Amino acid sequence: MKIIFYDIPSRLPLKAWSPNTWKTRYCLNFKGLPYQTEWVEYPDIEPLCKKLGVSSARTVDGTHSYTLPAIHDPSTGVSIANSFDIAEYLDKTYPNTPLIFPHNTAGLQAPFALAFGSNMRPLLNFLIPTECEKLNPRSSEYFRRTRERTFGKKLEDLAPQGPDRVREWAKVERGLGKADAWLRKNGGSGPFMLGTTPCWADFVIGGYMAWIKSALGEESEEWKDIASWHDGRWKMFIEGLKKYENVV
Amino acid sequence: MKIIFYDIPSRLPLKAWSPNTWKTRYCLNFKGLPYQTEWVEYPDIEPLCKKLGVSSARTVDGTHSYTLPAIHDPSTGVSIANSFDIAEYLDKTYPNTPLIFPHNTAGLQAPFALAFGSNMRPLLNFLIPTECEKLNPRSSEYFRRTRERTFGKKLEDLAPQGPDRVREWAKVERGLGKADAWLRKNGGSGPFMLGTTPCWADFVIGGYMAWIKSALGEESEEWKDIASWHDGRWKMFIEGLKKYENVV
Repeated sequence: MKIIFYDIPSRLPLKAWSPNTWKTRYCLNFKGLPYQTEWVEYPDIEPLCKKLGVSSARTVDGTHSYTLPAIHDPSTGVSIANSFDIAEYLDKTYPNTPLIFPHNTAGLQAPFALAFGSNMRPLLNFLIPTECEKLNPRSSEYFRRTRERTFGKKLEDLAPQGPDRVREWAKVERGLGKADAWLRKNGGSGPFMLGTTPCWADFVIGGYMAWIKSALGEESEEWKDIASWHDGRWKMFIEGLKKYENVV
Repeated sequence: MKIIFYDIPSRLPLKAWSPNTWKTRYCLNFKGLPYQTEWVEYPDIEPLCKKLGVSSARTVDGTHSYTLPAIHDPSTGVSIANSFDIAEYLDKTYPNTPLIFPHNTAGLQAPFALAFGSNMRPLLNFLIPTECEKLNPRSSEYFRRTRERTFGKKLEDLAPQGPDRVREWAKVERGLGKADAWLRKNGGSGPFMLGTTPCWADFVIGGYMAWIKSALGEESEEWKDIASWHDGRWKMFIEGLKKYENVV
C-alpha cells in the first residue's frame, strides 16, 4: 500500500516547488518507499489536515499551523505532518531502509533547519515574490493574501532592487558560505554532510536548492551564480541529490 | 609530552568556570590525552595568543579576537585556538582516542553551539554580572571594563530583577526545553545526544552547565530548578559528564 504524500502544486511542469515538501520527497525517494503524491491547493490544506487529524508542530500566534508536507501511511494507519516528524516516523517505521538519521543523529540534526534557515533569510525576499505567478489561481490568491498580511506589504515590494539587490545577494552567498564550511568538515569524503550518503541536513539544503531553481529558473543569473560559488560546491551537491528528485 | 591547555582562572576552589574553555577540558578528558592547564589572566590572553600565533576564528568588528581556550601541542608543534577547531584538531591528530565527532559528524555538529547558544541567550544576564567577584583582580578589572563597553551598562544592571527575573528565568527553562527535545530524539538510549557516549554537542551543553554552577553556586535556587526541570534530564546529564570534569 502506497504512502500518500500531500504536496502543494505549482503550474511548472514538475509541479513540485516548496522547500518544505521537497524535504519529505527527498526522504521518501532516499528510502525507496512506494508513495503517491496527492496535490493540494493552499485553501484546501487546513480542511485536509483537520480530516487527517494532523497539525504542524509549529504553532503561529498560539494557534495550530496547518501546512504541508503531511503523509498518510495506510500500512500503519498513521497520518503525520511536519517534515522533520515525518522523517523520524519513516526511520522508525522502516528501519531496514536507508536511514535519514543514521547513528542516532536525529537530535543532532534537529536544530539544523533553524541554523541553515537563519543563514538563508535574505534569500526569502528573492523567492517569495515569484511564487504567486507559479501557483494555480486559488493557491495564488490565498498565498498573496496571507503573505501580504504577514509581511505588511505587497509581495512585489519584498524583492530587493538595484544596489540593494546586489548587497542582499552577497548575503545569500555568505549564508551558503557558512554551509559550505560545515560541509567541508567531512574532509572531502563526499558532497554531503556525512560523506557520500545524504542525511536530513542535506535534504534541508536540497529543499532550498530545489526552491531556488523553481522560483528563479535554471537560466537565471542567480542560479548560475550559485553553481559557481564555493569552488563548485553547490553544483556537486545538486548533482548528488538528483537521483532522489523523482516526482511521482 | 603533555598538551598545554590555556584557561582563565577564577578564585573558586576549582579555578575553572568559562563555558568555552570547559568545552576543551571535556574534550581532553574524554579523549584521555595527557595535558596540563596553564592559567592565564584576561589581560595576558592577547600577548599569549600573539606569541603562540593563534587567534579565534571569530573576529569582532573585523579585527582578530583573542580568546581562550587555546592549546599548544608539543608533540606536533601545533598551537590552536577556538574550542571547535581544537576539537577537530584533536580528533584528526589522535584518531585512536574516543572521537568527539564520531561518524564524520563535525559538519553536522558545527552549527550546534550557535543553535543552543541562541536558545540560552536569556541566561547570560544571570551569569555575567556574577563573574567579576569570582575573577582575580587583574581579570576582574579587565572583564568589567570590556564587558561594560560591549553592553553599554554597568554589569550589575544586566541582572534581571523582580517579576522580570521570573520571566527571564522561564525563558531559560524554555531554552533548555528545546535542548531536552533534541536529546529525547535519541529514543532514550542514554543521557547524551548520540546515546551513552558524549560528543561535541554534549560538551557545548556541559560547558553552559559548568558555567551556571560556578556562577550561581550549587546551593542556588536556580541550580536546584535546573536539576528539577524536564523530568530530571539535566541532573542525569550532569551526572553523566562528571567523569570528564577533572581539572589538572
